[in-house]
Amino acid sequence: MSDSVLAIDIGGTKLAAALIGPDGDIRVAERVATPPGGDARTLWEALDGLVCDVTGDTAVTGVGIGCGGPMTWPEGAVSPLNMPGWRAFPLRDRLAGRFPGVPVRIHNDAVCVAAAEHWRGAGRGSSNMLGMVVSTGVGGGLILGGRLIDGGSGNAGHIGHVVVDPDGPACECGGRGCLEAVARGPGLAAWAVGQGWVPGRATAEGAETPAYAEAATATGRQLALTAEGVETPAYVEAATATGRQLALDAAAGDAVALTAMRRAGRALGLAIASATHLCDLDVVTVGGGLSQSGSLLFDPLEETLRAHAGLDFARRVRVVPAALGQDAGLVGAAALILAADRYWSPED
Amino acid sequence: MSDSVLAIDIGGTKLAAALIGPDGDIRVAERVATPPGGDARTLWEALDGLVCDVTGDTAVTGVGIGCGGPMTWPEGAVSPLNMPGWRAFPLRDRLAGRFPGVPVRIHNDAVCVAAAEHWRGAGRGSSNMLGMVVSTGVGGGLILGGRLIDGGSGNAGHIGHVVVDPDGPACECGGRGCLEAVARGPGLAAWAVGQGWVPGRATAEGAETPAYAEAATATGRQLALTAEGVETPAYVEAATATGRQLALDAAAGDAVALTAMRRAGRALGLAIASATHLCDLDVVTVGGGLSQSGSLLFDPLEETLRAHAGLDFARRVRVVPAALGQDAGLVGAAALILAADRYWSPED
Repeated sequence: MSDSVLAIDIGGTKLAAALIGPDGDIRVAERVATPPGGDARTLWEALDGLVCDVTGDTAVTGVGIGCGGPMTWPEGAVSPLNMPGWRAFPLRDRLAGRFPGVPVRIHNDAVCVAAAEHWRGAGRGSSNMLGMVVSTGVGGGLILGGRLIDGGSGNAGHIGHVVVDPDGPACECGGRGCLEAVARGPGLAAWAVGQGWVPGRATAEGAETPAYAEAATATGRQLALTAEGVETPAYVEAATATGRQLALDAAAGDAVALTAMRRAGRALGLAIASATHLCDLDVVTVGGGLSQSGSLLFDPLEETLRAHAGLDFARRVRVVPAALGQDAGLVGAAALILAADRYWSPED
Repeated sequence: MSDSVLAIDIGGTKLAAALIGPDGDIRVAERVATPPGGDARTLWEALDGLVCDVTGDTAVTGVGIGCGGPMTWPEGAVSPLNMPGWRAFPLRDRLAGRFPGVPVRIHNDAVCVAAAEHWRGAGRGSSNMLGMVVSTGVGGGLILGGRLIDGGSGNAGHIGHVVVDPDGPACECGGRGCLEAVARGPGLAAWAVGQGWVPGRATAEGAETPAYAEAATATGRQLALTAEGVETPAYVEAATATGRQLALDAAAGDAVALTAMRRAGRALGLAIASATHLCDLDVVTVGGGLSQSGSLLFDPLEETLRAHAGLDFARRVRVVPAALGQDAGLVGAAALILAADRYWSPED
């Protein structure tokens, strides 16, 4: 264990840490829930406790961190959108103080996932790759010429804000018609609810009010109905209008859910066509919750991509499911240390 | 002159060659018209004659070539779209045979323009730049992390095929709604003619049939009218429906021409917003004929860019006119030799 790197993956719902060997092999890993609504200190203490548990008395050779953006980079003062307790929190510096004498490096969590898929996953062997995460948001990272691309402020890879529908839905970024505004799980679910989708109905084998759904919250439907001033039917209030439920209902044949998956696939195909033309990509890896819908998502994605990626060189791009699952963030954070020649450019 | 590089810039309307010093200074330059409809041999002989004139008995230290695509790269067998006489013509090899013992390197002409603007032009000092050419086509080149990005097949930088209008006009690439399909000069002129634009009317000070236009061809109008089966009025047949005329008419206050320039500016702004989010750009340089329209093009471009580039990091991008004019292709071709650490990655 003497040659282990400490990898940390920080998100709004979970904190993860692992000891990772030189080949990207995970030796120890632990996860805890992110303290909901935690202030800066509560969040730090939860992370610190997790790090203690994982490292024990192991002397790590470096620390790699993936964290939700935005952040200053490479300084690593973080302000994760879904962790309001941390605003300009000096995460990298705090961990550097905790692990003196070894490199401590941070990058956007989706960038870490892309680095992982390139280093040890579905993009292995390619020199020009876009790694995507399609989940509650749509993020990504770019590898070009065999190296991770940082861009001017460490923010390269934001495929979620490529415009796919100029007059489309408003995006949380302040823009309009971004891929993320169309294809993120919650946005897609809200759109489907607006089109008449009743979460869980298709998967409940004809039951009008699926019993299993009663404990959950119909976020999207609630929003849509509130906006229209209509009272929410009780059985709808109980179901889960998420991207995951949408994918399940699409698989069960729900017509609106299927249309929603085609809508997401089309948006993804358009953004990938644009990225391929601009960056001359070999391969695009797609991970995250929504990507687990398989052909329901990938078929319309491919159809749109092939219709819009017209130039000869672009036709060779391959779109593949990500290979590393929930460990990708940890493996990519470790790559910032273990394969720094490809994934880390700044001076420490 | 003993430390000169031979730079060659090959296009469908002109062939250019120059001797260029270590700092990008042009010492000798000559241009000839590309032989119209020339076969492979005619084209080569025209180029060879030009090269002889420019080099004389100078022993050059290398040869840099910019040429219209597509081409195999870095091998440099070229098939320029608008030079049908060359199909898989081994241009790089022919020039390597002509100049033995020195590096002979080739890249896409728009990539060379981008390299030039980064090396010696409006993108100087930036590490993350998109260089664009908006003319009869829309091309570009990417510099990220201070280095020219080639992509998997030497085709990175094809900003003209970023999708800006998914249901928009068919593009020559086989796709639909590409930036180039909307904003290239001939496409824009054809669109304006379809909207009722009469080329030259606004600039001819009230004359119904501008005399100066009689020698020219109304390509766009001709296409639009032919498609509708309407007979072409004689005075329209005589006018020039080009991007340049469109810009002149917009400057003279022609309402349709102004709308067309806004249409182009909006398309450019959308594509630049997407590229900025994806690549975290510092600066975008815009050159080519249409870019000379000034604020008629740049104002709607900026307005759209600011409306869609929502993320904080993207707001800092600057869009500036290219600085090097018609010499950019030559300077960039020379950069493949003279600043190879930044602009040339393959093994020779």
